[in-house]
Amino acid sequence: MRYYQLYGDGRPRLAVETSETVYDLTTTNSRLRTFEDLLSAVSIVDCPIDAVAEQLLDDAAEIEIHPTENEALAAPVSSGEIWAAGVTYRISEEARQTESSMPDMYIDVYESDRPEIFFKATPSRTVGPAEQVGIRADSDWDVPEPELGVVLSGDEIIGYTVGNDMSSRSIEGSNPLYLPQAKVYDRCCAVGPCVRSASSIEDPHDLEIWMTISRNQEVLYNETTSTSKMVRSVDELVDYYTKHNIVSNVSVLLTGTSLVPDDGFTLHEGDLVEMGIEGIGTLSNTVVEV
Amino acid sequence: MRYYQLYGDGRPRLAVETSETVYDLTTTNSRLRTFEDLLSAVSIVDCPIDAVAEQLLDDAAEIEIHPTENEALAAPVSSGEIWAAGVTYRISEEARQTESSMPDMYIDVYESDRPEIFFKATPSRTVGPAEQVGIRADSDWDVPEPELGVVLSGDEIIGYTVGNDMSSRSIEGSNPLYLPQAKVYDRCCAVGPCVRSASSIEDPHDLEIWMTISRNQEVLYNETTSTSKMVRSVDELVDYYTKHNIVSNVSVLLTGTSLVPDDGFTLHEGDLVEMGIEGIGTLSNTVVEV
Amino acid sequence: MRYYQLYGDGRPRLAVETSETVYDLTTTNSRLRTFEDLLSAVSIVDCPIDAVAEQLLDDAAEIEIHPTENEALAAPVSSGEIWAAGVTYRISEEARQTESSMPDMYIDVYESDRPEIFFKATPSRTVGPAEQVGIRADSDWDVPEPELGVVLSGDEIIGYTVGNDMSSRSIEGSNPLYLPQAKVYDRCCAVGPCVRSASSIEDPHDLEIWMTISRNQEVLYNETTSTSKMVRSVDELVDYYTKHNIVSNVSVLLTGTSLVPDDGFTLHEGDLVEMGIEGIGTLSNTVVEV
Amino acid sequence: MRYYQLYGDGRPRLAVETSETVYDLTTTNSRLRTFEDLLSAVSIVDCPIDAVAEQLLDDAAEIEIHPTENEALAAPVSSGEIWAAGVTYRISEEARQTESSMPDMYIDVYESDRPEIFFKATPSRTVGPAEQVGIRADSDWDVPEPELGVVLSGDEIIGYTVGNDMSSRSIEGSNPLYLPQAKVYDRCCAVGPCVRSASSIEDPHDLEIWMTISRNQEVLYNETTSTSKMVRSVDELVDYYTKHNIVSNVSVLLTGTSLVPDDGFTLHEGDLVEMGIEGIGTLSNTVVEV
Repeated sequence: MRYYQLYGDGRPRLAVETSETVYDLTTTNSRLRTFEDLLSAVSIVDCPIDAVAEQLLDDAAEIEIHPTENEALAAPVSSGEIWAAGVTYRISEEARQTESSMPDMYIDVYESDRPEIFFKATPSRTVGPAEQVGIRADSDWDVPEPELGVVLSGDEIIGYTVGNDMSSRSIEGSNPLYLPQAKVYDRCCAVGPCVRSASSIEDPHDLEIWMTISRNQEVLYNETTSTSKMVRSVDELVDYYTKHNIVSNVSVLLTGTSLVPDDGFTLHEGDLVEMGIEGIGTLSNTVVEV
Repeated sequence: MRYYQLYGDGRPRLAVETSETVYDLTTTNSRLRTFEDLLSAVSIVDCPIDAVAEQLLDDAAEIEIHPTENEALAAPVSSGEIWAAGVTYRISEEARQTESSMPDMYIDVYESDRPEIFFKATPSRTVGPAEQVGIRADSDWDVPEPELGVVLSGDEIIGYTVGNDMSSRSIEGSNPLYLPQAKVYDRCCAVGPCVRSASSIEDPHDLEIWMTISRNQEVLYNETTSTSKMVRSVDELVDYYTKHNIVSNVSVLLTGTSLVPDDGFTLHEGDLVEMGIEGIGTLSNTVVEV
Repeated sequence: MRYYQLYGDGRPRLAVETSETVYDLTTTNSRLRTFEDLLSAVSIVDCPIDAVAEQLLDDAAEIEIHPTENEALAAPVSSGEIWAAGVTYRISEEARQTESSMPDMYIDVYESDRPEIFFKATPSRTVGPAEQVGIRADSDWDVPEPELGVVLSGDEIIGYTVGNDMSSRSIEGSNPLYLPQAKVYDRCCAVGPCVRSASSIEDPHDLEIWMTISRNQEVLYNETTSTSKMVRSVDELVDYYTKHNIVSNVSVLLTGTSLVPDDGFTLHEGDLVEMGIEGIGTLSNTVVEV
Repeated sequence: MRYYQLYGDGRPRLAVETSETVYDLTTTNSRLRTFEDLLSAVSIVDCPIDAVAEQLLDDAAEIEIHPTENEALAAPVSSGEIWAAGVTYRISEEARQTESSMPDMYIDVYESDRPEIFFKATPSRTVGPAEQVGIRADSDWDVPEPELGVVLSGDEIIGYTVGNDMSSRSIEGSNPLYLPQAKVYDRCCAVGPCVRSASSIEDPHDLEIWMTISRNQEVLYNETTSTSKMVRSVDELVDYYTKHNIVSNVSVLLTGTSLVPDDGFTLHEGDLVEMGIEGIGTLSNTVVEV
């Protein structure tokens, strides 16, 4: 099932999409307003989230939302931290051996047991579908990164979403110690359009993932890859993220990207970034300078 | 099952007592800390509260609390309003016909469809087991009233508790318009020691109810009656309380009393008030002037 | 000064009206969003509220709100309890001696030291300007009561507002023990349009107070009186309300009314109730059955 | 003035230390319980924090706390994020030119306009005085870093505290991309014992700073330096931290360290770490493996 967070009329509402239609779960209980409300209940009663949702459908009203029109949708997870991983996709033998193409530290991470895991964003820095993602005014090379996002309750994998790990390549590139400034800033992250339950995804390591970037209706970038090209498993990344760390009731771990525009490309204010993952949906955001 | 709210170590904990032992439910999930947490989850997933608790017992740690030693116990419901009913127990034909013994307005309520229902207390005015209940410093005739408390989630009956509807009879007696001042004040209400689930009470209209008042270890009052002497049903009282009203996620409706000390008796600071209901437990409080 | 609570764009905003214009205080500080925010700061730094607001005006943006068009206004106090007093206005000697015209208990309160003070409403039962006030579906005689509302921080008088103490006279009239049901129900109270600071009101006991009731644009009731006809002082009422009671950070005490439509009149759904107090403003609400 | 956060009896209390004595500010107003409460009020009324505190002293009770006995003290700032800076202290010409002694990226940061600024901790990962700081179980080289902490309200410097930026040098050292894992984990940060107001610190760039590490009462490390050896100003660091970023109502920016134990030293569980800054106080924590 897919869980959507609606803005509602002043107060949030939670919707769920089955294979047939979309239901407004808040019609079954006025206390059930956010995905976190459902997660909290599910966590306490210790039932699978889809089983709980399934039971509620009989009493829920069908609604006509068009999830692709993201205007009515908020970030599907609105509390908790967002962390991210890097260097998780296959690097060709050739690239690894061409010294100039990639700094050694990336190759080292690629070949090490320990993955690169970093703090990415707070809810205050994260936007939802159709909201604006930010590029730093003190950066001149900025890119979006489309990533499979793992939605966690504690260390348990609850579902998946699409995440945009916005990055300043000019800041990151000038010194690895600047990475946090390249990654953590105002509007640095987007997630959405929904949370797809983990139990309804057959294999998170076999999902098509794509990104399109347009400027004034002209497509500047349009590529597709697959999570099958990840060289780390989701479980492995979750394991490194959660151990020795404080993990909140809900959090999202972005799992890295391999869709990277050419070095000559940088985002401009007003650009439209669309990214999607098979079985989850499409996350669209425009770009604003911050 | 009986649900107890423990003070815990800085943060509250929720315990449940089965026919065999007591379990600390917070050991199953650190988000499950109050009866309201459980109620909220149960309300969302739409399962019976005891069924949910039953499922959690396997993972819960047994604890050695002695519910009769109330020191570790907080009020089992710590949010929501407390309302109360009056004139709900049988009045003898004789008393009704002896004009001097009872003002007409009580006889009128007794014989009317509409019961007496009134706002009793907020959480800030309510104490739990072993805490002090208040008598007003501007009152010289004060009594406790032991009552069956109906615990509600919206308009649904979830369970039962013991409630002490402290009353200033001198203020109430001088004018019926002073009733709110006689009933609503600092520390005017106590509830506890637990919430007994509704499904585990066979008949709320057939429960023994008793009260003992002691001063300096001397018993001054000790009487017993039964909820079978109520002339209104719990459902009828709940119906009148909830309709046309705003009812919060959790609330308690006290159902009136028939255990009233003689007119010559008034509470003093330091008195010990113990009241109990069959199948629920005993609520003990000492008295303080406020 | 007059303090208005604006709905804002999803988040509340606080405005203040001086003798010249209206300022949006939230433009000076994004943390300053409600009257309670200001009250809390003023309480901590122990300064007069108008002095603090005065200081902020230089940095505040002027806004064009028309306080008489209440659509943009929320209740000026949105947290805390509302209490009310009764039998506080002069009763003619004649009325007092005509036994049939008024039950003895009212004359008793009128002549006693202790006033009638009762719990009136929670925030959840209170509406603001332009919202709907309720009449109970199980009542057939319902009236509004326009009252001077004293805004308190603890037991300190901070300001004044207009309050509508909606009442079911059929329920109240059939038995004094039903008073809480006649007074406390869904949408039973309205307050607004602003809080006028206490220091800017010369004498709360000399303010004109009026009420107009219209149905289908036809005026059915239109009367004026003055708070100079109160027989209790504001201080006296506040004193009885606060002593032996729990008083929250902010609360409102309504001080009773003497503007009462004739016995033949009852409110209908859709009626427009407008009430005002000199120096404070006009509170308008339409009527809905609850 | 120095502001201390006390645990109180279940609820926090705020104390202030003048040159003469310590006052419990919560005795002046039960709403004033945390440094953030004071900061919020000060921010709204737009007065200097010490001026507000000064005014409250007449009504405040003196208390006998011994700030050096940290048991009663909580972290003086308990909400908001903690960020940190690195490579902020003077590096000798010799060290800079000895290639083996320091990776190039540190020299690059040292010589660049942009400082190293990184996300350090959330409140959930931060401990106060006398609490345990953490070393990661998957690290074998761990050190504390004593740093001047700048306490901010938005981008305004409010005061200073002592901060311990716990670091896993083995994780950090193996790859710069692991820095977030070396820095952000369970119990990775401590702050305290107080917030010293900015206006009462003559020059934050001329404060002695020291650290002592003891194991089984034996002193293993004991060094002193001065903030005068910083090569970045506090204003410059705050500027880089706040621009293009989301800054919460209160936050702390740690400004880097130059007190580093020899490479042969690593912390063990049970070690006592004491660090202090002239004019602020001493922060003591023991070490636990997480």
